[in-house]
Amino acid sequence: MALLRSIEYADAGPEVRAVYDDIKARRQVADVNNFWKVLANDPATLKRTWEEVRDVMVPGALDALTKELIYIAVSATNGCEYCSHSHTASARRQGMSDAMLAEVLAVTALANKTNRLANGYRVEVDAAFRPQFD
Amino acid sequence: MALLRSIEYADAGPEVRAVYDDIKARRQVADVNNFWKVLANDPATLKRTWEEVRDVMVPGALDALTKELIYIAVSATNGCEYCSHSHTASARRQGMSDAMLAEVLAVTALANKTNRLANGYRVEVDAAFRPQFD
Amino acid sequence: MALLRSIEYADAGPEVRAVYDDIKARRQVADVNNFWKVLANDPATLKRTWEEVRDVMVPGALDALTKELIYIAVSATNGCEYCSHSHTASARRQGMSDAMLAEVLAVTALANKTNRLANGYRVEVDAAFRPQFD
Amino acid sequence: MALLRSIEYADAGPEVRAVYDDIKARRQVADVNNFWKVLANDPATLKRTWEEVRDVMVPGALDALTKELIYIAVSATNGCEYCSHSHTASARRQGMSDAMLAEVLAVTALANKTNRLANGYRVEVDAAFRPQFD
Amino acid sequence: MALLRSIEYADAGPEVRAVYDDIKARRQVADVNNFWKVLANDPATLKRTWEEVRDVMVPGALDALTKELIYIAVSATNGCEYCSHSHTASARRQGMSDAMLAEVLAVTALANKTNRLANGYRVEVDAAFRPQFD
Amino acid sequence: MALLRSIEYADAGPEVRAVYDDIKARRQVADVNNFWKVLANDPATLKRTWEEVRDVMVPGALDALTKELIYIAVSATNGCEYCSHSHTASARRQGMSDAMLAEVLAVTALANKTNRLANGYRVEVDAAFRPQFD
Repeated sequence: MALLRSIEYADAGPEVRAVYDDIKARRQVADVNNFWKVLANDPATLKRTWEEVRDVMVPGALDALTKELIYIAVSATNGCEYCSHSHTASARRQGMSDAMLAEVLAVTALANKTNRLANGYRVEVDAAFRPQFD
Repeated sequence: MALLRSIEYADAGPEVRAVYDDIKARRQVADVNNFWKVLANDPATLKRTWEEVRDVMVPGALDALTKELIYIAVSATNGCEYCSHSHTASARRQGMSDAMLAEVLAVTALANKTNRLANGYRVEVDAAFRPQFD
Repeated sequence: MALLRSIEYADAGPEVRAVYDDIKARRQVADVNNFWKVLANDPATLKRTWEEVRDVMVPGALDALTKELIYIAVSATNGCEYCSHSHTASARRQGMSDAMLAEVLAVTALANKTNRLANGYRVEVDAAFRPQFD
Repeated sequence: MALLRSIEYADAGPEVRAVYDDIKARRQVADVNNFWKVLANDPATLKRTWEEVRDVMVPGALDALTKELIYIAVSATNGCEYCSHSHTASARRQGMSDAMLAEVLAVTALANKTNRLANGYRVEVDAAFRPQFD
Repeated sequence: MALLRSIEYADAGPEVRAVYDDIKARRQVADVNNFWKVLANDPATLKRTWEEVRDVMVPGALDALTKELIYIAVSATNGCEYCSHSHTASARRQGMSDAMLAEVLAVTALANKTNRLANGYRVEVDAAFRPQFD
Repeated sequence: MALLRSIEYADAGPEVRAVYDDIKARRQVADVNNFWKVLANDPATLKRTWEEVRDVMVPGALDALTKELIYIAVSATNGCEYCSHSHTASARRQGMSDAMLAEVLAVTALANKTNRLANGYRVEVDAAFRPQFD
């Protein structure tokens, strides 16, 4: 049970309904998932967060699937159960195979390991790695 | 200054030299970077970590650049200065543009944000997101 | 099921009972919550932790509710389910509204986002932000 | 040195300049700080992040200083040097005393401690703490 | 339910079976635990991870129990429920008492607290603590 | 430069001096390190934190060196530069060799890796690992 109740469409005001309608139309789903229903207790955060997800996750310099894979990597690093499930579902809708998921998590695990070796030994950054702006 | 001294090639034993030779040959570099020189104080960890990096980061179900982008996302999440610099350098060698870096960090930032909204509100995972294995 | 069993008042020794009595008296509750019952396996840690909670969370330069809001922000950042629930309950007893909870989590989410943008880009601290002590 | 160069006003396009102008006007400062100058490499993220900071950090159910204190607590938890400095500076402008800073960090430290006791022992959430929605 | 199904011995290919056989023989157990069954979806990661656990956790400069205690401390810090349970079980098989577990978590909690005080105040490292290599 | 100035002995009040005296006497050092000098801005936190370090880090069910190793592992996991340096120094005074440090960090790195595999795949805890209290 979340800390605040879920706001269903029938109980929502016009600002929340507008966000729900946009989510349902763009994702072609019959109802929004729990994350949005809980955020709807704070309509400004609901609207801002949805618009950020909508605008950041579209294809740009990176394709949409690559962005979902990054989301999975961060969610695994932070131990967010909800986000691991929801973004795995999103990534699968965009074509992520089991093998791709396994590679995302293998890289995530490796990076978490070497991050601690570098931080634990306090390794100094090589001069050659530092950006040079003329 | 790292917690242990850097082991230069001239001072290294055969097990460490073999790893350094493999890194230099595969990466076409004249010398290995500081991370490996510090790890060389523990030859078994040096060898195991290098082999993991070498084998995990090759193209598979994901291409090598996508794997570097995931590494950057995890390193930003964990606040690893060394890894942010070294993997940005690696990713650039594989073609990462400024725009791609910016999108990696925009997704990373967004995921860190929504991870805390989901965890902070303790949102329950939708039944529809849970995997169904017959 | 926690890793160690809960110690109930009837089964506790005098050092643990003294802590339980202090918690119950100050919080006006009939029984202590699970956190303390598990910590009671280690009476010294129970006593030290309770005294720290008791002494740090009282009004000082900050009022008690502000301190509970900070606790919620940290617990959301670290993904501590137990602490999110227990400190939301504490904060509500001290007057936290749904709108206040929503704002705590909106700020927490934003800070987690910009922390990663600053760390991910390795932005240098402005000289003007560094404290100047004559 | 950040991973991308700082974009100064003189070198910025109109979208970036509009954000800089808004920051300078609202904060009454002669120039924007480094965080924004690096984010300006990605004008969409610059604009979105600034608008989120601007709109989330205003007084609402919580006053502006309380929000800055929460920001400091999260930044200390995540080890973000830049954000610790920049938000301490912001909080001081809004009246934070040394004693208030000390209390923020004392609560932050305590929460980080008890988060690990609760997570480390896997303490079960008390039924009484779980929200009840009729 | 994990994101990928568990691979039972009867359904596993020869590479996975070889790992399972090694785990069962060394640990003297009738079946491997869930972690390995899920990793088995990615045989290369299964093999690499098992060999790392096997080779790193043996007695060396540190005894095997001390290594398990460190594992518990890290898992509590990261909030990994699975690892807290599995490594507590491992540590108990190697002689960890309730009192030892309590001390591991008391130190872990203290370190998480002082890490945030040091990072939150941005305390500068004393010159005397920096390693001196001639 | 830390966020608050260092309080030197000559400028300290009696409560702070009493803590400094206790640190210097027990550690046989001529002056306290920066961490305490910054904490001294908040005498109550200084006293509480020192007493916790003093009382938790003494030999008990675990010896003092093992406790320092756990501190190093947590500090590496959290990326606390100050604590990595100060507790490496402490551990060396108690006999930690380079080989022991290397093993601490190898275990820490491995645990950070498998924590993310377990959390990333959302592996379910085996029934056999759950404690059974009659």
